[in-house]
Amino acid sequence: MPDLARLSLNTVTVRDQWTLAQCIEGCARHGIRWIEPWRDKIAEYGLANAAQHLRDAGLSVSAVCRGGLFTTGDYQAVLEDNRRAIDEAAALGAKSLVIVAGGLPAGSRDLPAARRVVAGALAELTPYARAAGVTLALEPLHPMTCADRCVISTIAQALAFAQSLGTEVWLALDVYHIWWDPALESSIAAAAGRIAAFHVCDWLVPTRDTVFDRGMMGDGVIDIPRIRDLVESAGYTGTIGVEILSHDWWKRDPDEVLRIATERFSTAV
Amino acid sequence: MPDLARLSLNTVTVRDQWTLAQCIEGCARHGIRWIEPWRDKIAEYGLANAAQHLRDAGLSVSAVCRGGLFTTGDYQAVLEDNRRAIDEAAALGAKSLVIVAGGLPAGSRDLPAARRVVAGALAELTPYARAAGVTLALEPLHPMTCADRCVISTIAQALAFAQSLGTEVWLALDVYHIWWDPALESSIAAAAGRIAAFHVCDWLVPTRDTVFDRGMMGDGVIDIPRIRDLVESAGYTGTIGVEILSHDWWKRDPDEVLRIATERFSTAV
Repeated sequence: MPDLARLSLNTVTVRDQWTLAQCIEGCARHGIRWIEPWRDKIAEYGLANAAQHLRDAGLSVSAVCRGGLFTTGDYQAVLEDNRRAIDEAAALGAKSLVIVAGGLPAGSRDLPAARRVVAGALAELTPYARAAGVTLALEPLHPMTCADRCVISTIAQALAFAQSLGTEVWLALDVYHIWWDPALESSIAAAAGRIAAFHVCDWLVPTRDTVFDRGMMGDGVIDIPRIRDLVESAGYTGTIGVEILSHDWWKRDPDEVLRIATERFSTAV
Repeated sequence: MPDLARLSLNTVTVRDQWTLAQCIEGCARHGIRWIEPWRDKIAEYGLANAAQHLRDAGLSVSAVCRGGLFTTGDYQAVLEDNRRAIDEAAALGAKSLVIVAGGLPAGSRDLPAARRVVAGALAELTPYARAAGVTLALEPLHPMTCADRCVISTIAQALAFAQSLGTEVWLALDVYHIWWDPALESSIAAAAGRIAAFHVCDWLVPTRDTVFDRGMMGDGVIDIPRIRDLVESAGYTGTIGVEILSHDWWKRDPDEVLRIATERFSTAV
């Protein structure tokens, strides 16, 4: 039997097939003890229902996905929505809220300005996160998403943000976003003590979509065990989230997806 | 009239429409004085024919595209092909040969090993390049091409390679590949005196293909004038190549492409 004790199901992996209730039951069936729900699934189920079902199933929440997106829409409304996200993480007993910074505002080419907005928003949220006992897990996203999703592109950059913002801001590291980084070793080592979450999936060749063509672990070219070693050498002992955004995997039978994910967790991670 | 003195037409911009002979005539019609031919177009025309036509047209070659691809195929054959590329650059009076390192070898997940192959190949080629009077312009490519095209992803990484390899290895900087880099300012400043080529195009939102969906300058989100300022502040005074790999632009009338490119060169670069 594979050791599944650290596997966390990120619900986006079966986004199109299952509700949160079905994800919770699915985890129980497949021996998975951790879950990372996305907020749309929580909203659909209702926060109280979700919390009750998770307790009943004995499932723990490693993180809530996701807050952030600070650079688009009405800034005060976005901050308020992030406070609600922190509340949800706290209500579900999640250790952290994954933060995706946001891309360039519509019509803007000013990356430095967008990054300043992100820094300001995080600074405004940290007291609220501290009071709620929730860690903000700032996730550097692959540079190919810089324009439309996340202006924080490298571990080193995210770490500089986190270190300037106090002890509430840590990092979420996903092999998909960081594997290419020439400074991978030194950056992960520098992030020791600040890693709040670790995610796995794989990079497919060819990659046909800049967001929704991630691969199952083992189907691509990322040396996942090497990156896991680096993350664990930096002291990380937490959960390992399986987060696969993929139009292909979203068409598969979700129990088959979980069966393969748990199998690959022991052979390719 | 726009000042076209520094514009260089990279022939891939009209790859599907024009032969090299047609590119040369097109540059003459549009007042463009520099050209960056790709090797397949040179081979198709014949090196001697190309050299003669360029001389007759009074057109100068800023760079030949491209050498490299060290990590795939038979290593000795690849090195030999790169020596031919250096010969071609010398025969056409090009100041530099653009080098795209190559991606992961088929079946490999070992990025550090692939990077060592690139370093070894460049070290083997530098004496030959020196003797030919050709600068090797190592181009960091966007991280989304790391698996299948180029394991050199950032300016800082390329610069470290170049500095370890002597005075024959410089950098080629393309806004498309570097615009997202959080270390952009410091990296370009550090590359002062090593910048052999500067390329422009634009990043489209959405980007539908990881290689062939580049935009015309001004149609995307890159702050091209800011990056040009950084490059020129680092002492670069050379040509500015227009290099647009795009299934869309390859369907357009090539004279229209050159008309728009020259116009945008003065309004968006």
